[in-house]
Amino acid sequence: MITVLCGGVGAARFLSGLVQVVDPATITGVVNTGDDAVINGLAISPDLDTIVYTLAGAIDRERGWGLGGESWNTMDALHRYAVVRPDDSEAAATWFNLGDRDIATHLYRTTRRAEGASLTDITAEIAAAWGLAVRLLPMSDDPVATRLVLPDGGDIAFQDYFVRRHHEVTVSGVRFVGEASPSDAAMDAITDADTVIVAPSNPLVSIGPLRSLPGIDAALAARRDRTVAVSPIVGGRALKGPADRMLTELGHEPTVLGVARLYRDIAATLVIDPADADLAAAVEGAGMRPVVTPSVMSTPESAAHLAAATLAAR
Amino acid sequence: MITVLCGGVGAARFLSGLVQVVDPATITGVVNTGDDAVINGLAISPDLDTIVYTLAGAIDRERGWGLGGESWNTMDALHRYAVVRPDDSEAAATWFNLGDRDIATHLYRTTRRAEGASLTDITAEIAAAWGLAVRLLPMSDDPVATRLVLPDGGDIAFQDYFVRRHHEVTVSGVRFVGEASPSDAAMDAITDADTVIVAPSNPLVSIGPLRSLPGIDAALAARRDRTVAVSPIVGGRALKGPADRMLTELGHEPTVLGVARLYRDIAATLVIDPADADLAAAVEGAGMRPVVTPSVMSTPESAAHLAAATLAAR
Repeated sequence: MITVLCGGVGAARFLSGLVQVVDPATITGVVNTGDDAVINGLAISPDLDTIVYTLAGAIDRERGWGLGGESWNTMDALHRYAVVRPDDSEAAATWFNLGDRDIATHLYRTTRRAEGASLTDITAEIAAAWGLAVRLLPMSDDPVATRLVLPDGGDIAFQDYFVRRHHEVTVSGVRFVGEASPSDAAMDAITDADTVIVAPSNPLVSIGPLRSLPGIDAALAARRDRTVAVSPIVGGRALKGPADRMLTELGHEPTVLGVARLYRDIAATLVIDPADADLAAAVEGAGMRPVVTPSVMSTPESAAHLAAATLAAR
Repeated sequence: MITVLCGGVGAARFLSGLVQVVDPATITGVVNTGDDAVINGLAISPDLDTIVYTLAGAIDRERGWGLGGESWNTMDALHRYAVVRPDDSEAAATWFNLGDRDIATHLYRTTRRAEGASLTDITAEIAAAWGLAVRLLPMSDDPVATRLVLPDGGDIAFQDYFVRRHHEVTVSGVRFVGEASPSDAAMDAITDADTVIVAPSNPLVSIGPLRSLPGIDAALAARRDRTVAVSPIVGGRALKGPADRMLTELGHEPTVLGVARLYRDIAATLVIDPADADLAAAVEGAGMRPVVTPSVMSTPESAAHLAAATLAAR
């Protein structure tokens, strides 16, 4: 049994490689929900949806989120209401784009939550609707919100940072708000796995929320030899998103060495790209065993290769 | 000032005639909300929306509800989830069709309600978004649900009866559930109007919920000479919907005479179609002054004619 700790796009691509090299039924993804938000009254779980849509082959590959061949008629129609809403209202939010078919997923999740279903159960239903064999688990059934601290001391919600402000503002800290515990299923998936993989996701705002839950880091640390992390930083840059800049802003090195220092307590091995082979010794010095293999997942084949190499690195 | 008591399609067409013959700014519609429902987590107000879309010239005239030129991609995508939802869940409801652009209206209303806005304020915002000059008021800011009693004594929600069961089941009663009061604005619109018009809507399940609110019937009765009702029954048949059959099932005559007996306490005048001229004396005998004028609103011109004749009948 393999358990993968997941954020969004990078994890989705990694999983789409992993299912090519092992039986998908042996894979459990434990997915960040710190980005979850309620926008236009809809309960949105961006990382979970990105993974579901990617594994179903339905993702829009160019955008990296949402469904391919999507239409945008609801969002277009919302603009009419954005003009009339009171200044203090968040209704008719048009800064967070939602495709028409994607909205069906959010309507389903929102309705099921209102019925009292756990996000764990809802996620299993959504995964079944898309015919996935991989088991996907939200990290927690409790709400937990990733918030970015700004230099003025105030903080903003993750989607506000990531989408509304295009992750262009400088951040001075990350906070996780909410009295959340890992779900039993998520904790079991971590403790019972033969191999735990930390997907190539943002260490601070994708894997960070997972690690902020009580017991997760201790469970990983207790058997860190089983755990392999895949660096989301290649050649000093994030493959996707603001991880490189955010590492710098928050006092970490924006390199595989910075990643190693973040992960060394919970994982024995770090998969790095040949572009970073010159830092292999430094990674080793920081306490992780470096494994060098091509880590850029630009094709299904390269994702499968990275997944196979990561499994072999354990 | 003219106040029109409104249900859905018939009232919407009547209002679209009225705005052609008087300044729309002098018109207030007080609209039934007993049909309102939460479906797929969306707060839906069918009668209000039918009126807004009709007055905006955006209604789908053939269907009589929803927007013209609509797409259905969200609803299509919901079917995927209908297959996986648990048996006891109402999520992914596909029996109540919602167009993609129509969903924007429901998202707006749902979000504003969650923010604590009154349906009166929300309706004014939606009407403004569509550029309407007519003032539209929900009858109440409190939830009130029209329920249809079945012969076995159980009852079902209005949309369940009307949409899910295509108003094909026999009903033995109508109930209005909820401790609702008319909004102050709705009550003022009725008491302050020079003329009150009861639109050609179903007397039992469109006008009935309005009349069930405390104070409405008394306010109408106190100055019944101002009030003109337009019969929704022409030649013994409802122009739209199940009003004729429902009148029979609930012990009323499915004719203008049956309508007169329902309205005589609150309105002095009843507008009836020439097809029912033979019942004019019976209407008079029942206590209402009959005014005979073509009442079938098949074109904008015929709606304008009916509106003008109704005003003149006062």
